[in-house]
Amino acid sequence: MSPRGEDAPATGDVTARKRGRPPRTESADTRDRILTAARAEFSERGYDKASVRGIAKAAGVDAALVHHYFGTKEQVFEAAITVAFAPALNAPDAVADGPLDEVGERLTRFVLGVWENPTTRTPLLAIVRSAVNNETAAAVFRRLVVSQLLRRIAAQLDLPDAELRAELAAAQLVGTAILRYVIKVEPLASADVEQIIARVAPVVQGHLTGD
Amino acid sequence: MSPRGEDAPATGDVTARKRGRPPRTESADTRDRILTAARAEFSERGYDKASVRGIAKAAGVDAALVHHYFGTKEQVFEAAITVAFAPALNAPDAVADGPLDEVGERLTRFVLGVWENPTTRTPLLAIVRSAVNNETAAAVFRRLVVSQLLRRIAAQLDLPDAELRAELAAAQLVGTAILRYVIKVEPLASADVEQIIARVAPVVQGHLTGD
Repeated sequence: MSPRGEDAPATGDVTARKRGRPPRTESADTRDRILTAARAEFSERGYDKASVRGIAKAAGVDAALVHHYFGTKEQVFEAAITVAFAPALNAPDAVADGPLDEVGERLTRFVLGVWENPTTRTPLLAIVRSAVNNETAAAVFRRLVVSQLLRRIAAQLDLPDAELRAELAAAQLVGTAILRYVIKVEPLASADVEQIIARVAPVVQGHLTGD
Repeated sequence: MSPRGEDAPATGDVTARKRGRPPRTESADTRDRILTAARAEFSERGYDKASVRGIAKAAGVDAALVHHYFGTKEQVFEAAITVAFAPALNAPDAVADGPLDEVGERLTRFVLGVWENPTTRTPLLAIVRSAVNNETAAAVFRRLVVSQLLRRIAAQLDLPDAELRAELAAAQLVGTAILRYVIKVEPLASADVEQIIARVAPVVQGHLTGD
């Protein structure tokens, strides 16, 4: 929605600023700040209790600007989650890139790796918490995770029931993440991640390519 | 608030009412009504947004009576969930009762059976929604599901890492339930339950007793 990069360098294009439209870098910064605030708000408060006003306040902008950039609360949520999911949306390629009989381990390592990292855990918490509590957020989850991630993995399996296979593999990973990182049941929460991978990866592999 | 049962028939035991303490059956009815209202409130609104006042209103009693019977909101939550979980808490025996190489199928049938039944699904939704959003509710989940259910199953396995096995088996079941019944991803949400059992039961069995 605003200039950035080659045509409006961060060194300060005063002319551009005077035109009443912020240079692209400033606008991009603001958008990033709003999305970061949105991820924090959604993960801490859940979809229902999060508000555009609260996000705007945390980002230091007016609520009208949040609506201007992103639209409704649902659209803010989807934008915040999509950005956070950008690396994950490359997962199908990364996961498919290698022998098919190790796809379970690659997918398990990828998912648990994202959860182990506190930075990438926050948006996942936001989407899981919101999706189990709110139908709008659940719809976003279905679009992003199911359509973009699982269906792409399924497409690479080339099996008739590939989508169901991918979803049951995802169920093992989602359940493991919820019990380990969200509800923190012991001994699972404190177990070494390699021990978890050693047990979960064959299950994921079995769902994806087993008989 | 009206008497019922052997010692205070519905025809009206005026003497008993005048003693100022409701007969036991009346009290039990009121408690049941409060717990039913609590389960509905927690599953619809989640732990954070549910209130003792809202539960009291739905049950047709004063909020003070809810506190009198059950204590704090956390204690109301635990009481509501414990009653709902009473059948599930017998599961370890039912699940253990039979050949060990079919324990995965028995546990899977038991868990999915509870989720397939709309009546028993409501308290499960309440506990899942609340536990992923609220640390107090997560603690109740850990006490009830992990300590009372999973540890008892683990005890019957008689393996050194039985608790971790039981939790990873639970992860497959929890994840399947969340994707199928809560977030409703397709084709999993509409798949025949027997097809799900056929795929999930061997995985649960593998976690519990596999190499």
